Amino acid sequence: MITSLMDLFTDTYTNIGAQSDLDGYEVTKAFTDTFATIQAGWGESVTQNIRQAYPSVASPFSEEIGDADPEAMALVWGTAAHALDYDDVHTTSVTHPSAVIVPAIESIVLSENLSRDRVYRAYLLGLAINIAVGDALGFDHYIKGWHATSTIGPLSSVAAVSYLMDLDEHNFRSAISLAAAQAGGMQRNFGKMAKPVQAGLAASAGVRAARLAANGINAASDAFGEKGFIDLYSGSTPGKKPSEIIMVLDASTLSRKLYPCCYLAHRPIIAALKARKEIDLDVLTDPSVTVDVRVPFGGTRPLRVLVPNTGLEGKFSGPYTVAVALTDGQVNLRAFEDESVRRFDLQDLSRRITLVEDDLNGSLPEGINHGTVSLFIKRGSKILSLSEIEHFPGSPQQPITNLELETKTKDCVDHALRIDGVSINADELLKQAANCVPMN
Amino acid sequence: MITSLMDLFTDTYTNIGAQSDLDGYEVTKAFTDTFATIQAGWGESVTQNIRQAYPSVASPFSEEIGDADPEAMALVWGTAAHALDYDDVHTTSVTHPSAVIVPAIESIVLSENLSRDRVYRAYLLGLAINIAVGDALGFDHYIKGWHATSTIGPLSSVAAVSYLMDLDEHNFRSAISLAAAQAGGMQRNFGKMAKPVQAGLAASAGVRAARLAANGINAASDAFGEKGFIDLYSGSTPGKKPSEIIMVLDASTLSRKLYPCCYLAHRPIIAALKARKEIDLDVLTDPSVTVDVRVPFGGTRPLRVLVPNTGLEGKFSGPYTVAVALTDGQVNLRAFEDESVRRFDLQDLSRRITLVEDDLNGSLPEGINHGTVSLFIKRGSKILSLSEIEHFPGSPQQPITNLELETKTKDCVDHALRIDGVSINADELLKQAANCVPMN
Repeated sequence: MITSLMDLFTDTYTNIGAQSDLDGYEVTKAFTDTFATIQAGWGESVTQNIRQAYPSVASPFSEEIGDADPEAMALVWGTAAHALDYDDVHTTSVTHPSAVIVPAIESIVLSENLSRDRVYRAYLLGLAINIAVGDALGFDHYIKGWHATSTIGPLSSVAAVSYLMDLDEHNFRSAISLAAAQAGGMQRNFGKMAKPVQAGLAASAGVRAARLAANGINAASDAFGEKGFIDLYSGSTPGKKPSEIIMVLDASTLSRKLYPCCYLAHRPIIAALKARKEIDLDVLTDPSVTVDVRVPFGGTRPLRVLVPNTGLEGKFSGPYTVAVALTDGQVNLRAFEDESVRRFDLQDLSRRITLVEDDLNGSLPEGINHGTVSLFIKRGSKILSLSEIEHFPGSPQQPITNLELETKTKDCVDHALRIDGVSINADELLKQAANCVPMN
Repeated sequence: MITSLMDLFTDTYTNIGAQSDLDGYEVTKAFTDTFATIQAGWGESVTQNIRQAYPSVASPFSEEIGDADPEAMALVWGTAAHALDYDDVHTTSVTHPSAVIVPAIESIVLSENLSRDRVYRAYLLGLAINIAVGDALGFDHYIKGWHATSTIGPLSSVAAVSYLMDLDEHNFRSAISLAAAQAGGMQRNFGKMAKPVQAGLAASAGVRAARLAANGINAASDAFGEKGFIDLYSGSTPGKKPSEIIMVLDASTLSRKLYPCCYLAHRPIIAALKARKEIDLDVLTDPSVTVDVRVPFGGTRPLRVLVPNTGLEGKFSGPYTVAVALTDGQVNLRAFEDESVRRFDLQDLSRRITLVEDDLNGSLPEGINHGTVSLFIKRGSKILSLSEIEHFPGSPQQPITNLELETKTKDCVDHALRIDGVSINADELLKQAANCVPMN
């Protein structure tokens, strides 16, 4: 039994090459999802600003990467990946893992012209460390105010990059400690451009730490001992002990967002899409028809907006997202542009939609993945339709399908074309993502 | 009365230009001290390694700065400045302020070709914020295991760089929040190359944050509110409230090291240099002569080494540093090269030197600046000499003199020549430092 987190990571690091049962298929999905969100985020204002700060960084889809610094590439691409909050999620560590790991991997592979043979193992190692550090910190880390994506992120990105650079065990340990020394990011920056930038900073810090260690900068051989990373960054309630932690080398543990809005709106959206098939759509314009959505305890907390005025507000509005799903039968990036939220039909229907939380039954649940969502379409007290949803769409219990991922990719590409005027073609993007993760 | 730390900083930021009574003379000293330690640290192995990672970064004394990235310059120069732990100290915030602020300032001035008129105000602003954040965090921040130089450092370097880049108030607030999102660094990395690198990372993070804000990346308007920087980084015992904090725009609050070893050895060294003038030096080789040094409570804690085997160990040896002062009448960088600590006369005398701590009288003292040091040279029970020292040399109570700073500069330049084979001339270095801080 390994009782040191650093020994656990080092053991995984040195032995990952020998594991033949690792599944690269889900890694390709993670790359596709991240590439799609980078493309969608490329023209967003936060990305335009950061591209202005680092003008030598080209799009990862560009033919000519040039001589941009890999740290700058990771920073810009990580920011783009998280710009729309449409990238993948890990629900127990409360992180966006791929927006950090994939840009770090791509920056070092492209700038150092490395072989891609080891990419999927590098990704799985980074993800496993991300999940394990989340377990070790416990949920209280997030409650305290840390932005877990950017505090845990440097540790996962440095592991992936170290593996690609083939650091020896000593340098790997130093790289982890140098990444731990750069961990930061606070939820106070949420709602500002700084939020996606914090994901980019985590990607970049991992590249920097690996580069320093590769050039002989030594650091603590165990970043997690007394007064180390866990002691400094945990909240008051501890997480798991190293002996209780299992390294999960499996990207199917991720949740992929099917809709470009708050993940807590996803079950109400799916319930609405299901209900839509069972009703006469004309009832939606009937002023006496109302929609009641029952969500589990805690399920409306980030969905603070009742009737939105901007696209951004729309992403955090339960009524609006349900109204879009019922009316249009799809919820894509166009729905969160400012002119869409001002559509009369959506505003009118939103006002007749109510989300109500269930009472707390038993102890406080951890994370968001619990309970069920029920959606009632009613005329007065008469129920016209009832749909119930247990699993989050795109979650490990209800994984994203290839078709759904292609639809999302197309949505991202279309958004980029509308915003930035240029975009890679969707088929090309899917092909490029697949080529990035050769499995052998 | 200002009750928000961010308002306090913003108020100082926007009004510093109007203050005509600011003293730039001490800022020149800070630049001289930092330039000297950068020069001394330039050939050290940690700096050689980091130069290899960022080969485009030239020495700050180079004629041709080239097109290196300012973030990389700040990283390499900050690392060099702290490589020998010979750079200046602020004793209540437990930080090395100039090793972070000066490289950040120089990197942006040189790469953007900015006017130097505002440099001394930029420095004083960065220092004031460094001291204030230390007050707000309290000493428990350090006790918890954070490396205060590198956690507070990004906030001080970003303030200095923002001022030089003339950011408006909105962008200044964002810059502080973007720097806060990059704060990190742990004492667990002490004793490794990562320690000075953490100072460099803090310098670099400040440059990055200012650059991001200057390009329109917005962030929290107050980094210090609920679940912000102070809540995340403080220990269990709180520091001062914003209303109790005074902005100190004065570089004479710094302590400059006169000797390239642990600051707690400095009073014993001065006591030894004083005693040396009063004794016949032959007694030092007399095996029946012993030296007793009484130091205040806590005064031997980092001085763990009794008889050192390496130069690095010598820096943390009370007996060795006293033996050098008594024997050679000076304590310079040569004394901490490996062959020096193996000198027979120094090893012999070290074995007859004892440091004893006073008992704790009253409550636990804060920091290191308290009590007195007494040094007795004895033959049996007969006291040959007694010298007592109250103030730390180089501290605000006993400021470094121009002659002492020139002697230190010469020592640094000589060290660089011995290690690296190249060095700027000492007079040239002093002139360059003075030119960097024009006062008007």
